[in-house]
Amino acid sequence: MLEKLEQFVLLHDIYGALLTDKQRRILKDYYENDFSLSEIADDMNTSRQAVYDLIKRAEHQLMQYEAKLGLLDKLKTTRRQMETVCELLSQEEPDVERLLEARRILQETMELL
Amino acid sequence: MLEKLEQFVLLHDIYGALLTDKQRRILKDYYENDFSLSEIADDMNTSRQAVYDLIKRAEHQLMQYEAKLGLLDKLKTTRRQMETVCELLSQEEPDVERLLEARRILQETMELL
Repeated sequence: MLEKLEQFVLLHDIYGALLTDKQRRILKDYYENDFSLSEIADDMNTSRQAVYDLIKRAEHQLMQYEAKLGLLDKLKTTRRQMETVCELLSQEEPDVERLLEARRILQETMELL
Repeated sequence: MLEKLEQFVLLHDIYGALLTDKQRRILKDYYENDFSLSEIADDMNTSRQAVYDLIKRAEHQLMQYEAKLGLLDKLKTTRRQMETVCELLSQEEPDVERLLEARRILQETMELL
């Protein structure tokens, strides 16, 4: 559940600008400000069910954007590879083999972008 | 002109999946296969003006996506920084100062993503 929530927060970070202001506000209240459906419904003067439907529709849109553009997947891979490179460079004693490996990973990552 | 063309090719690479099949096909013929407006119009059994309008509309959409998500800008910066890191790592003799600089740039880049 937490993993799914984290996934939607990340998708919202990337694709949120493609949603409407209303969708963005509700997702922010729900995911980031941890408001309940009822609280958001009260605040918007609407029903809990209407808020639930709106969130599900917005989540579906975010997943559709990811299915088409795959940016979250790309960014995750890029970050992971860059962390590996940082680790390779963090040794006290510089080592040619490690530097070659770091360059190889960086070049592979650039091709991905 | 060439720069503008290159910009649209890159935007099409990133956001093309959000366009319709028809828009994608026409942009591909126009940008990548270097067909003229008249050739595309003949092929689609429509007017040169209709093709022109369609391309302008699709280009406008691509620019709107970039204005909202700014991914091309981010990817360009990321690539540029990674190239700098690769250069720093390509010296024959490993050097602690350069490695520190490489790590600093990588960490800065990860925050951008």
